[in-house]
Amino acid sequence: MTPSALLKILSEVERGKLSPETAAERLATLPFEDLGHTRVDHHRSLRSGLPEVIYAADKTPEQTSAIFASLLADGVDVLATRINAATAEVLVRAHPEAVHNTVARTVSLRQTVGLQRNGGHIAVVCAGTSDLPAAEEAAVTAETFGARVTRMYDVGVAGLHRLLAVRGDLLTADVVIVCAGMEGALPSVVGGLVGVPVIAVPTSVGYGGSFGGTTALLGMLNSCSPNVTVVNIDNGFGAAYTAVLIARAASRTKQG
Amino acid sequence: MTPSALLKILSEVERGKLSPETAAERLATLPFEDLGHTRVDHHRSLRSGLPEVIYAADKTPEQTSAIFASLLADGVDVLATRINAATAEVLVRAHPEAVHNTVARTVSLRQTVGLQRNGGHIAVVCAGTSDLPAAEEAAVTAETFGARVTRMYDVGVAGLHRLLAVRGDLLTADVVIVCAGMEGALPSVVGGLVGVPVIAVPTSVGYGGSFGGTTALLGMLNSCSPNVTVVNIDNGFGAAYTAVLIARAASRTKQG
Amino acid sequence: MTPSALLKILSEVERGKLSPETAAERLATLPFEDLGHTRVDHHRSLRSGLPEVIYAADKTPEQTSAIFASLLADGVDVLATRINAATAEVLVRAHPEAVHNTVARTVSLRQTVGLQRNGGHIAVVCAGTSDLPAAEEAAVTAETFGARVTRMYDVGVAGLHRLLAVRGDLLTADVVIVCAGMEGALPSVVGGLVGVPVIAVPTSVGYGGSFGGTTALLGMLNSCSPNVTVVNIDNGFGAAYTAVLIARAASRTKQG
Amino acid sequence: MTPSALLKILSEVERGKLSPETAAERLATLPFEDLGHTRVDHHRSLRSGLPEVIYAADKTPEQTSAIFASLLADGVDVLATRINAATAEVLVRAHPEAVHNTVARTVSLRQTVGLQRNGGHIAVVCAGTSDLPAAEEAAVTAETFGARVTRMYDVGVAGLHRLLAVRGDLLTADVVIVCAGMEGALPSVVGGLVGVPVIAVPTSVGYGGSFGGTTALLGMLNSCSPNVTVVNIDNGFGAAYTAVLIARAASRTKQG
Amino acid sequence: MTPSALLKILSEVERGKLSPETAAERLATLPFEDLGHTRVDHHRSLRSGLPEVIYAADKTPEQTSAIFASLLADGVDVLATRINAATAEVLVRAHPEAVHNTVARTVSLRQTVGLQRNGGHIAVVCAGTSDLPAAEEAAVTAETFGARVTRMYDVGVAGLHRLLAVRGDLLTADVVIVCAGMEGALPSVVGGLVGVPVIAVPTSVGYGGSFGGTTALLGMLNSCSPNVTVVNIDNGFGAAYTAVLIARAASRTKQG
Amino acid sequence: MTPSALLKILSEVERGKLSPETAAERLATLPFEDLGHTRVDHHRSLRSGLPEVIYAADKTPEQTSAIFASLLADGVDVLATRINAATAEVLVRAHPEAVHNTVARTVSLRQTVGLQRNGGHIAVVCAGTSDLPAAEEAAVTAETFGARVTRMYDVGVAGLHRLLAVRGDLLTADVVIVCAGMEGALPSVVGGLVGVPVIAVPTSVGYGGSFGGTTALLGMLNSCSPNVTVVNIDNGFGAAYTAVLIARAASRTKQG
Amino acid sequence: MTPSALLKILSEVERGKLSPETAAERLATLPFEDLGHTRVDHHRSLRSGLPEVIYAADKTPEQTSAIFASLLADGVDVLATRINAATAEVLVRAHPEAVHNTVARTVSLRQTVGLQRNGGHIAVVCAGTSDLPAAEEAAVTAETFGARVTRMYDVGVAGLHRLLAVRGDLLTADVVIVCAGMEGALPSVVGGLVGVPVIAVPTSVGYGGSFGGTTALLGMLNSCSPNVTVVNIDNGFGAAYTAVLIARAASRTKQG
Amino acid sequence: MTPSALLKILSEVERGKLSPETAAERLATLPFEDLGHTRVDHHRSLRSGLPEVIYAADKTPEQTSAIFASLLADGVDVLATRINAATAEVLVRAHPEAVHNTVARTVSLRQTVGLQRNGGHIAVVCAGTSDLPAAEEAAVTAETFGARVTRMYDVGVAGLHRLLAVRGDLLTADVVIVCAGMEGALPSVVGGLVGVPVIAVPTSVGYGGSFGGTTALLGMLNSCSPNVTVVNIDNGFGAAYTAVLIARAASRTKQG
Repeated sequence: MTPSALLKILSEVERGKLSPETAAERLATLPFEDLGHTRVDHHRSLRSGLPEVIYAADKTPEQTSAIFASLLADGVDVLATRINAATAEVLVRAHPEAVHNTVARTVSLRQTVGLQRNGGHIAVVCAGTSDLPAAEEAAVTAETFGARVTRMYDVGVAGLHRLLAVRGDLLTADVVIVCAGMEGALPSVVGGLVGVPVIAVPTSVGYGGSFGGTTALLGMLNSCSPNVTVVNIDNGFGAAYTAVLIARAASRTKQG
Repeated sequence: MTPSALLKILSEVERGKLSPETAAERLATLPFEDLGHTRVDHHRSLRSGLPEVIYAADKTPEQTSAIFASLLADGVDVLATRINAATAEVLVRAHPEAVHNTVARTVSLRQTVGLQRNGGHIAVVCAGTSDLPAAEEAAVTAETFGARVTRMYDVGVAGLHRLLAVRGDLLTADVVIVCAGMEGALPSVVGGLVGVPVIAVPTSVGYGGSFGGTTALLGMLNSCSPNVTVVNIDNGFGAAYTAVLIARAASRTKQG
Repeated sequence: MTPSALLKILSEVERGKLSPETAAERLATLPFEDLGHTRVDHHRSLRSGLPEVIYAADKTPEQTSAIFASLLADGVDVLATRINAATAEVLVRAHPEAVHNTVARTVSLRQTVGLQRNGGHIAVVCAGTSDLPAAEEAAVTAETFGARVTRMYDVGVAGLHRLLAVRGDLLTADVVIVCAGMEGALPSVVGGLVGVPVIAVPTSVGYGGSFGGTTALLGMLNSCSPNVTVVNIDNGFGAAYTAVLIARAASRTKQG
Repeated sequence: MTPSALLKILSEVERGKLSPETAAERLATLPFEDLGHTRVDHHRSLRSGLPEVIYAADKTPEQTSAIFASLLADGVDVLATRINAATAEVLVRAHPEAVHNTVARTVSLRQTVGLQRNGGHIAVVCAGTSDLPAAEEAAVTAETFGARVTRMYDVGVAGLHRLLAVRGDLLTADVVIVCAGMEGALPSVVGGLVGVPVIAVPTSVGYGGSFGGTTALLGMLNSCSPNVTVVNIDNGFGAAYTAVLIARAASRTKQG
Repeated sequence: MTPSALLKILSEVERGKLSPETAAERLATLPFEDLGHTRVDHHRSLRSGLPEVIYAADKTPEQTSAIFASLLADGVDVLATRINAATAEVLVRAHPEAVHNTVARTVSLRQTVGLQRNGGHIAVVCAGTSDLPAAEEAAVTAETFGARVTRMYDVGVAGLHRLLAVRGDLLTADVVIVCAGMEGALPSVVGGLVGVPVIAVPTSVGYGGSFGGTTALLGMLNSCSPNVTVVNIDNGFGAAYTAVLIARAASRTKQG
Repeated sequence: MTPSALLKILSEVERGKLSPETAAERLATLPFEDLGHTRVDHHRSLRSGLPEVIYAADKTPEQTSAIFASLLADGVDVLATRINAATAEVLVRAHPEAVHNTVARTVSLRQTVGLQRNGGHIAVVCAGTSDLPAAEEAAVTAETFGARVTRMYDVGVAGLHRLLAVRGDLLTADVVIVCAGMEGALPSVVGGLVGVPVIAVPTSVGYGGSFGGTTALLGMLNSCSPNVTVVNIDNGFGAAYTAVLIARAASRTKQG
Repeated sequence: MTPSALLKILSEVERGKLSPETAAERLATLPFEDLGHTRVDHHRSLRSGLPEVIYAADKTPEQTSAIFASLLADGVDVLATRINAATAEVLVRAHPEAVHNTVARTVSLRQTVGLQRNGGHIAVVCAGTSDLPAAEEAAVTAETFGARVTRMYDVGVAGLHRLLAVRGDLLTADVVIVCAGMEGALPSVVGGLVGVPVIAVPTSVGYGGSFGGTTALLGMLNSCSPNVTVVNIDNGFGAAYTAVLIARAASRTKQG
Repeated sequence: MTPSALLKILSEVERGKLSPETAAERLATLPFEDLGHTRVDHHRSLRSGLPEVIYAADKTPEQTSAIFASLLADGVDVLATRINAATAEVLVRAHPEAVHNTVARTVSLRQTVGLQRNGGHIAVVCAGTSDLPAAEEAAVTAETFGARVTRMYDVGVAGLHRLLAVRGDLLTADVVIVCAGMEGALPSVVGGLVGVPVIAVPTSVGYGGSFGGTTALLGMLNSCSPNVTVVNIDNGFGAAYTAVLIARAASRTKQG
């Protein structure tokens, strides 16, 4: 709740338009919807510029479906991540215009395409074929929220020429998302090549001493490139969410 | 090396202005200076928009001093972090205009103040008094590279009213840096209040099960706020470096 | 065995009512029942005010069923936790008045309802939909032992307004149980809002760097709110057990 | 801020006694005092029944001294923990009535002794001589906030007869704090003997595979006694803080 | 190979009964049998007093069966551990006199019963019902190698009276094996009650912060009872193997 | 790209045979083939002497099959590791001359047998039957790339005579690969017996405190034999890859 | 307290020689002495055959000195471990017949030499020079409690011939203590050579990935030799304590 | 001991030149020298081609000095690593021709320079200035044992052009040692550029989440370049020891 909203309520109390009791209740009640199992945050779009996203991993098809419909009614772009086949089928049947990306494990439905301002340019880079689920989750998230995405896949550091071959495109991005498992070295190398923020996504790709992505995570946190920040293992969504916020600002700059 | 630079060299070869041997050597030799112990990267300012920064933790006063002088000669803003008293004294004696911040453990010398474009607005938030070294390292870094910084200290989540009291200021920042030790909960709460990227800096503040900041680090990586990305423990510098890149773009947007 | 019980036996020996041999045996034999696989502790209700509870996770339906019947015969309230469908079916068929809560994974049968003293008021709070199993295990346990429970679900810290909306109810509880996974920040925030003990239950909700609840566990142990104590990951039962002991005392205080 | 306080402010606005602007500011400004480095929480005593306590580990003597004086002015009991000799000397010189406990590493000053209600009875138990710092920190904290404390030291499980010898006293406590290092087995054994909450404090006592108290911490979290909750390693203060809240309620019950 | 065996071979060389070439080969060839996948150690019984035992966890039924037969031919007692149903069926069909213990997951066949010397008395203690697989693996191993075993199950420390009730029997054992999961406190308590070696077996019983038995393992290694040594998680076999070596010696002592 | 290749391109530009634009493109485009999901590195064979190997663990049969065919077309020896039954069937059906090793989980196809230089002699040693998958992966890899392999299996350190029996053969190898799980002691012992490099492969064999091979990995890294280097858990392929490079050099030495 | 002692007290009550009150008190009061900071366990010698040992690491010279004197008065052999120079000086000055071993960091005083039964033969083996503190702590402990000790030092597995050279002596021991740091491989090798229990002492010798002895600890717990049990890192005392119990029994066997 | 040596001894027994007793003793006694604290391995040079090296970290100046002299007497090249100033002074005073390298913390004395065969070419690469101690330890070790060393320092992956600038030299090495801390990405990148074995040395350089080099260690073990093997943290010596064995063979190949 912003200071101006607070002032408005208090003014109405002053002018007798609102009883103290009602105002007290209103101050305590912010705009969320209680579905029983979930309190849908219709306020988030106002507060943070991006609508709530459904993390479907631990939800039943019914729960996910109810939240999906509730958000759609707001007119915002709706995205559900970590979706399984059963839930995806329920959503796509109910909303034929929704798109199910099986690699990214997402269902998305854009309602603001015509309205949308320029969302900037995000490069999504990944080290190997096995990093595709995280990379695609990032790419789909970014596209759902209006960014232009360039995908650069299978450019790991053991064959540096593959990365150098796409360097030209890399340099045009407003922000770069880098997904890598195993030793997680790619963000450091990319970070040294570009002058924009790099968001590193460690992936659970690897075996033995990769400890489910922990090695990549630690490597990225210790990056010697200072423009690298890190998100949780396999969290392509979170990386893209922040990247969208950055790319929007950068994009508007260039246009201005 | 950008594509246009490559083309330029090759054109000179074509026009006979450059022998193939010289061109081959030039392609292999990028602009760094070998001090023996260190290869100073004069190229970074071109490549990434920000000059190289000296991480003084493992360097002798002589090594740090040599790199400091070498960078100064480029005309860029110079920053040395993790500096001890002995090295700071050497630097400040050699460069009286350099500033030693004892809490941040930095020595900085700005040469571009008059020239500098608008660097945007960065909020630096910390949970408790003990987080000041990381927070100040972030604040000094951001200021050295031209950003305006608002400090909001000792606003940890156990007394939420302290954070809510500064919420108005928070909402005006282009990017927020949040430093916290112990359970590291503050970035999640801040992330839910603002609509810009939040860069979380876990600090080594705590004891016992804080494991030198590891608990805060893990907590931040698992943040339920999707606009939070994370850097290494106590890495105020890295957080500020990325924040500067973001804030510059956002700032220009607003002006445009 | 209490000092008075010891004195009683010794007096009987003195008065010749008990041979030394019998007394020695009695002193060594406390009231448990050996079912072969299990030694049922009929004594616990006397010793600790609450009867033994069956942890069914590693037991066969037959073992659980035998212990359940053995405890029922004592006239106490009986609770079995971490129960699977097969065992639940066996229990409910044998005891139609028993209640199977599928989310909490419990079967309970209350025999003391009419007799019961006021058990106090316990708030059970959780951060997200996925924390329901732990939260419900806590709620059912508390209710089985006579406490009044208020459930406040899906009030995680990334949308602080949801928590603040239920703050009024929170303030009326004698003790608060808070279940959260991921970064586990909720107990610190709740702890700062209330003046009663907060028992934190880390849950195994999350992925990647949540390490099966370890991150939430460590975060809660490092809470900056000093009224927070912690139990094992997903241990809703243990939290409720202690909460009942606290709430009973507090409740009687208020009535007195 | 409680609902009634909110209503009161709003009523004043309604009755014209308060302008909306002033009310808005007041709602945003809760009672803390900004000392620059620290925001002293004068509100905590109202909110949680116990005043703020100074964690002096990372503070300078000057900072600790300033906060100490600021809290004293509220008329509450003041406690500083993890205090070193230098800071203790400063405090005791400034406030001769303050008490410095060198084993507990505390400085405390009670101002409410005459006024205080019955604070209940807390047993502080420890396994060995080396656990004394944590145990005494707990005991001093409890006494500072009005509880009666019984100390039972060096009663580790390898010589069970020592524990059984004090069992009679144990059974009269409203809550038990148990400090132990190494394998941390004592809380489980104590938990099985009493019918009140047990708060376990793992200590950093041990070597090798004790990993600075981690082994004791994990052992306590996995206690087979369901009335055991746990705090951070060496956190005698936190254990006592919660114990005081419990003991007060229990104590009033008995009197009522 | 013992010194006397070496001397014997060399004497035969000296006396011309053995060519140097044959002796060299014999010195290099110790008595094992190469089954292709496995080198069966027929020598172990001579070297260590106990025959080789088959760890069947990673072996096919065919491999286990071949080794089982190969050892049987030596006339020793044969034991296979960590056996699954399929392999057990193959073994029992081939050797009807073999015994399959489904809780211990063992198949054993004793051939030396009539011949066997007194193997001493081993107490096998466990904390809860869930520890039975490890406890039975220990008991069966000890019995297969000639020890007398007393089982004392479900005597965990949260109900100390259950352990004290069996203390009389405990005191008659030559060595005690204690199996416990969760916090693993039982060996410390048992160790304080008896004057013989205690071998602690951490079990993988527990959840959350038990980390698959790691907490119990660490707890036991930090035991404050100095007569406790530890084996790997769930390693009932290893505990019994060493216990048999100890009990044999002790038993002979008593008889002598 | 080698210096001579660079010079050649530049000379062609100088002589007008190549336009600067084409040369710039060629310099940026190194010889890999983009299959969409994968960028096949046809260059590796030139760069490192050994062709690219397919890590099939996370790839679909179709992806693996496409890369397999693409590499075959280069005329090199082709190896796919971590292959499952389904993919193996696809490959063998398409390429009847390919060999599927079910223990090693490899499919290999040698095309250079007649042409191949002497690849040296590699000993592959393993501690127990359960280490065979890693050992065979190493052996097949080494054979595919032209080395002669001697297998020495089930020679763990608990029966030292088994290892000493094969010591003669060990001493003839140019490099030794040692696979072991559990405590991972074998490489240290082997390292002390031979005068060539030992490459240690920790395996995930074991249970409880073996933590999926982590204990063996750490043991090997701390080896007291200085000729031991280590690869990731179960990484028989990586060990053999390096061993082939070493053995080739050593082999040529002996012949020269 | 043994059953016979219990019977004796009860008989006295029956015969009127003891009032029930006195008997109740006596049953509750076992023979320890409360020095304030410490409860000295005079009973241990009766209960476990070996007297209490002073772990001096966390005690002041005064505390250690008081316990030392208290135990001496019992007529038992007295041992203090982990002793620093200051405390050692105090003890030796007070008790000139006490022996200070600076490598073992012990002070010991034997009072039962003439009386003592045969304590058996213990081999103390260590891998390198750096393991001497743990090895000597074990050796001195064993000798203090009457065992004959053979020291075999610097016989690590990288030079197997050094170990094989002392194998003859090894085979005459009743029990073997093996101290090793780094990879901790020595107990497995020794365990395969002897037919008696091996007690493994991981030492904190090593660097980097030895993690203060954790790697050696884990290696020993995963030993493939089934006659190996393990104690805490650097716990030479604990190993010797158990070894003395084993060696005594074995020794009497041989004499009988 | 080689088979031929064994045959020779046995032949002498056959021919009556050696009594069986003497032969038995000789077979058991391999050539080491017992200095009391240490058994010097004069045999290693024969067995492994390189003499024993003194790890001085835990040894007194006297112990190191005695071993140094003992090895010198063999005529081999002598190297002591992890040496402190005090020990270095003792050695250099006793042996003025010995060389103390303060960065590498080594004292070395070469006696075989004139005699030595070609030792090959080793590249020692490191990521930053702080990695110099490990890199120099490797370089000095390699030079002491006869290899030619090229040092390439401060070429970390964040400024890739620095590494590419030395690529030409890299390609001429027989084996490459790469030292790096922080994320440890450099070996993967180097491994992709060269066709020879790469030995990775993780260094303890970094802070926070580098966990004393553990992150670099894990990263290197998960390298996507298959020609990378790894040694312990900061183990420059071990890397060089193996590198010398590899380089010797490769070097001879080229000459042949």
